[in-house]
This record gives sequence, structure tokens and C-alpha cells, in this order.
Amino acid sequence: MTTTLTPAADPAAARAHYRAGLAVPSSGWAPGYTQANLVVLPRDWAYDMLLFAQRNPQPVPLLDVTDAGSPSTALAPGADLRTDLPRYRVWRDGELVDEPTDVADLWRPDLVAFLIGCSFSFETALLDAGVPVRNIEQGRNVSMYRTDRPCRPAGRLSGPLVVSMRPVPGALVPTAVQVTARMPQVHGAPVHVGAPGALGIADLAAPDFGDPVVPADGDVPVFWACGVTPQAALMASRPPFAITHAPGHMFVTDVPDVAYRQL
Amino acid sequence: MTTTLTPAADPAAARAHYRAGLAVPSSGWAPGYTQANLVVLPRDWAYDMLLFAQRNPQPVPLLDVTDAGSPSTALAPGADLRTDLPRYRVWRDGELVDEPTDVADLWRPDLVAFLIGCSFSFETALLDAGVPVRNIEQGRNVSMYRTDRPCRPAGRLSGPLVVSMRPVPGALVPTAVQVTARMPQVHGAPVHVGAPGALGIADLAAPDFGDPVVPADGDVPVFWACGVTPQAALMASRPPFAITHAPGHMFVTDVPDVAYRQL
Repeated sequence: MTTTLTPAADPAAARAHYRAGLAVPSSGWAPGYTQANLVVLPRDWAYDMLLFAQRNPQPVPLLDVTDAGSPSTALAPGADLRTDLPRYRVWRDGELVDEPTDVADLWRPDLVAFLIGCSFSFETALLDAGVPVRNIEQGRNVSMYRTDRPCRPAGRLSGPLVVSMRPVPGALVPTAVQVTARMPQVHGAPVHVGAPGALGIADLAAPDFGDPVVPADGDVPVFWACGVTPQAALMASRPPFAITHAPGHMFVTDVPDVAYRQL
Repeated sequence: MTTTLTPAADPAAARAHYRAGLAVPSSGWAPGYTQANLVVLPRDWAYDMLLFAQRNPQPVPLLDVTDAGSPSTALAPGADLRTDLPRYRVWRDGELVDEPTDVADLWRPDLVAFLIGCSFSFETALLDAGVPVRNIEQGRNVSMYRTDRPCRPAGRLSGPLVVSMRPVPGALVPTAVQVTARMPQVHGAPVHVGAPGALGIADLAAPDFGDPVVPADGDVPVFWACGVTPQAALMASRPPFAITHAPGHMFVTDVPDVAYRQL
């Protein structure tokens, strides 16, 4: 057990802290390296999830899928997915039953892990391009909303598109679109700009997940497909067993963010 | 049965001709619309194929995956995948057993169809950008080669990366890279430029698939991941039953090529 609270700069060092039991949000750790959402399912449900991702690539951009039973991923060859996240969530029949700091004792030979791109990567790219990110400025989690736009169903999985919203100064909306369009593996271009009602969102100040974020004068709401989408679909369809990361407690990979920036 | 030989300009009209029994290569039909490779497998093998595609997106860019038993695809809502290709191949235990013009009598409730991007789409984009496409100029099929570079295996599926090669004038190689990099769903940027030996290719004049294509003075060989890769992996691993399109006899979709050109 470590009590270090200074975020490690190196992904392997970050994972070593988490493996030793440190259970803190991963934001700010190993800056410049891609962090990923985790969804773990029995092999029986893995086909539905893989198909759901293929059919809904904006909300579910798959970065890697493991072999059944293997705790290893190509995104970080030395890592162990059972121990190397800061905190997990364990679900049975769609209900949250535990939030442990490792899941080694729950691992089974039929489990398949899905590592899914995360908007942390494109927030860095937005800042690099001079686009302010209000949720970071305000020290809050990004605002997220269920929309009235259904995902394409896949087998037993279906559900609404969930979006994140960032207020962007009107003059920088084109930059925000271009920067994120070049990162399709971390949700890509926005799905909508400007009119929350068109997505079935009644009140921007009352997000379904995350925190309310205050826009500045002249900001326009910009909506991106969100990595909460697969978790929402999964929980609605109640697989007998699932493991995910705890919100904000992501898997830190060895892959630089720039690897997901296209030409 | 129709005897029309003038290629239809409209995708639905092209498919109607093929449905009526016309068995001709689809090159030149419905120009500007995306054509797709077809692989059909029993549900028992579909997970391996879906995972192989996720792990090898350059050679296996999935455009759509059907629900088990359904002959319908989101790429062409009015189409029937059992009848609307000009010619099919039927495989049993990895051996080619038939080349029929429809597969309605072979369809089963457990069959899953994979529609995979095809380089026809980026050849149009290359021509639009002023890059000559020698195989088109010479009226030949593109040259394709097995490489010594293995794909990432997935379950029972493994095999070498297969590449297509197009000779490109040296000054236009950067344009060819940029144009195709913007089309990741139809194989994307080249995987290699210039040195066939680095891919384990001994003799460019002796392709493993397709025809030899003669370079012009100053042309450089440019190699792209090729849609033959999944078929090669599939045939090597010998599933009990599979259907594919016959070479050159593709599925004509309703999706304009430009829909797969990114920002």
C-alpha cells in the first residue's frame, strides 16, 4: 500500500500505484497517455457487445478486446486488467453490488474485457488547439445526458445514445469540430451543435450524469457521443455478471494520445 | 433473366439486374456508390470474425454486420443479400464447392453476413485527386501479395496480412497517402511504400492474387492492406460452411463513396 498522492507521469508507474491499492481518480495521471473505459462480460454476452460497438462506433470506440480469460491487453503489455485500475464496479443482474480496488478473486476463464476510448484524450487535443474546456476550468465532471436518439440495437443490447456536452465559444466551434473529427477512436466529431431540444434534452442545467457546467457568455453547447452509452445499454439489459471501471477511475494505457490523432 | 450489359447507374437498378440472374463483375456499375466484400459465416464462427476485424481494422474494415438469419443490411435497406450479388462462392470445410448466382436455398437462420470495405472506393478518390491508377489504365485486376506480416489472431482465425500494390509516381505518393488516409473504412493509408522485400514479397511481377501491373518510369510501389486478408484467414481455418462474393462480383450498396471520406 502506498500513500503517494503526486500523480505519476509514467503509465506503468501509475498502474503500479493502483495495483498496490491506491484508489483515486485517474484524471491527471500519466498525462499524454490514453485512458480507457473498461467493460468486462462473460463470453456469452461478448458477441452482443462487440456487435453493439461495431454498429455504434461513435459512442463505443473499441481500442482493444481481450482473449477470453486473459487479463492482458495490447494497449499496455505489462499490465494486469484485474488489478491495475484504481477502482472497479461489480454488477450482478444489472445491479451494482461492489466497488473493489481489484477483481482478481472474481476473474473467470470466460471473461472478455472491452477497452473503450475516452474523451480525456480529446480534451487534451482541444486545449492544445486553444479551445477552453469549461468542465476542466471549473474542476467538475463533464455534463452527460440521455438523448431520445436510440443506438442501433445488437442482440440483447439496446439503449439511448448518451452524450457529453461542452460549452464552446461560438468562434471556436469549427476548431472543436475539426480537432475531434480527427480522433474517431475517442468519439470523433460532435453529434450535434446548439439545440439541446433536438436531442430530447430538456434542461442543460440538469444533466443525467456528471455535474452541471456553467457556460460563458457566447458559448454554444456542443454534444459528443459518450462512453457512458455502452454502460447504460449494458445495465438496462442486465447481464448476469459484469465488471466495469468506477467512474473516473480509468485504465491508464501505454498508448500516447497522439497515436489516436489522425492526419 | 436480363441480357442488359450496360452498367446501371443506380445501385438499386444494378442489384435488380443481378437478382434477375446477370452474373458480371460489378466494376463500373453504380459509379460513385460503395461496393463491399461479403463474408457469411455461421453464428458459431461470427464472434471470431468480428474480433478478427476489430483487431485488424486496416485489412478488415467492417461496414456492416447483419443480425443472425437476416438477409438485410443497413447499407442498402431494400436489398436481399441472398440474391443481390452477381455471383457467390460457397465453401465447405475451407474448400470451394460452388459459384452460384444466388444463395437463397443455402440460407440458414444462424448465418451472419459481414460487409467489408473495398479499395474500389479509394481508387475513385485517387483518380479524383489526379493520381493515376495503373491497374485501371491497363484494364487489369490489382496485384495482391501475401506478406510475412501476421495479422493479430482472433480465436480460430489467423493468417498473414495480404496487401494490394499500386505503382504511384514518386511525386504523387504524398497525395496518395493523404487521400487514402482519409478513408479508413476502405483500408485507409498505405501500410508500406517502396521496399517489397520488407514485407517478404520476393517478386512484384508474380502476385499471389490478381494480375501483374506494369509500373511506369519513376513509379514507386505503394502497398495497402487488402480485403482478401479475411478470406485468406477464413479459408486457412476451414469453417464448416461459408459464403463469400465471387472475386470482382461485389455487393453494390446505397452508400455514396464520399460518405467514407473523412474531413
